[in-house]
Amino acid sequence: MKSDGVWTAALLVIGDEILSGRTQDKNVGQVAIWLNEQGIRLTEVRIVPDDTGRIVEAVITLRASHDYLFTTGGIGPTHDDITVDAMAAAFGVPVIVHPEARQILEDYYRDRPGGLTEARLRMARVPEGAELIPNPSSGAPGVRMENVYILAGVPHIAASMLEGLTGRLEGGKPVVSVTVGARAAESDVADLLRETEAQNPGVAIGSYPFFKDGRYGANFVVRSEDGELARRTGDALAARLREAGYEPVEGGI
Amino acid sequence: MKSDGVWTAALLVIGDEILSGRTQDKNVGQVAIWLNEQGIRLTEVRIVPDDTGRIVEAVITLRASHDYLFTTGGIGPTHDDITVDAMAAAFGVPVIVHPEARQILEDYYRDRPGGLTEARLRMARVPEGAELIPNPSSGAPGVRMENVYILAGVPHIAASMLEGLTGRLEGGKPVVSVTVGARAAESDVADLLRETEAQNPGVAIGSYPFFKDGRYGANFVVRSEDGELARRTGDALAARLREAGYEPVEGGI
Repeated sequence: MKSDGVWTAALLVIGDEILSGRTQDKNVGQVAIWLNEQGIRLTEVRIVPDDTGRIVEAVITLRASHDYLFTTGGIGPTHDDITVDAMAAAFGVPVIVHPEARQILEDYYRDRPGGLTEARLRMARVPEGAELIPNPSSGAPGVRMENVYILAGVPHIAASMLEGLTGRLEGGKPVVSVTVGARAAESDVADLLRETEAQNPGVAIGSYPFFKDGRYGANFVVRSEDGELARRTGDALAARLREAGYEPVEGGI
Repeated sequence: MKSDGVWTAALLVIGDEILSGRTQDKNVGQVAIWLNEQGIRLTEVRIVPDDTGRIVEAVITLRASHDYLFTTGGIGPTHDDITVDAMAAAFGVPVIVHPEARQILEDYYRDRPGGLTEARLRMARVPEGAELIPNPSSGAPGVRMENVYILAGVPHIAASMLEGLTGRLEGGKPVVSVTVGARAAESDVADLLRETEAQNPGVAIGSYPFFKDGRYGANFVVRSEDGELARRTGDALAARLREAGYEPVEGGI
């Protein structure tokens, strides 16, 4: 157990397609939610291009400043998939073909057209010393190297790798979020929010405006590691908003 | 004009709501696409919490390593909106109320319920020396401080601020992307892709698998600052894929 009980993670998203705007990232959200369920806080995300130097630099920095580092993208069979090589460089170890990964791919491609080609065998390459992360979706496994977890970029494959890791990482308490929605302009309730936060040490309150059905409103999100405190503060905030005359929006939007 | 003709930008997304997974970011994609139209490449994104120290550190690092830095989030009227204060700290200047921003807010809220409250006036605060970025959506302007462009977090407001900046930033050539789709497993065409890229210096080819209508396929994205070269390479790649027997997917998916 860590002395402060707070476990942190960073996520490194690797991919030109995200930075060009061609592909909308879906991994930040799902990794964030999954990490919170493990009692680990996602406290930084970086998105970098398919560039070895940039990946190496980010890996060295982020794995030193967080308990865990997750990466998504760049572990497929084509020439632009350079995550494993960059990771090996970051750790100063060679790339090897992992015997178990090779076996998984041989089994997976045995009855598939083309079989285990050289390109597909690329997906068995890992930094020396790495372990595999099972991938029920498509054969090619993810890779764990010390505190770095290398996941696929395709969101449903990344999700199935996370599923395989569920409950296996040491963490603290999940942060509990309670959302209170109201038909209030956030600027009108700024003082009320600040006071409620100040009166309840251990909670953070975020304010997120929305425009829906032709009218403005805002979601107020109360977060705490103490679930009971989050719920109690959420109830108190909802009561204060009602008293001030703002129409509630059940559960927020 | 820069000697290498390449202009770069970083984007700093500020917000606990993105890191908790509560809100799906939509600004990375729209900022990326807009920047490319201006001839500027988005080469890094960081997402950090609503934490002054983390924002200051990221601003100092990213604005030094890129021609431009854009930020989204944290410029509203509530206590969790700390971007302007963090920016002033990063630049070592005080926060002031910008007279023109104050005037804009006075005009905007004159006939609106509540008028220009103290909370709303927070949105006229800028680091000393900053200029305003017009915001046709909701009154409160964005802020430019040297090479840092501070935008709203709400995507449609960020979009309207970008609209106001269109054509006003110095940049190089946009990168042209040509997408070639095919019903091919990317691992089967890995060699073909690598060869095509090697034969056409000045292009980068990315490979992005998909699963659609019960069948696998992939989009191959050819990128270059030389539009004619990108199109020619895309045509050549499409022809090679057809010759190899792969069914084309017009324009990709």
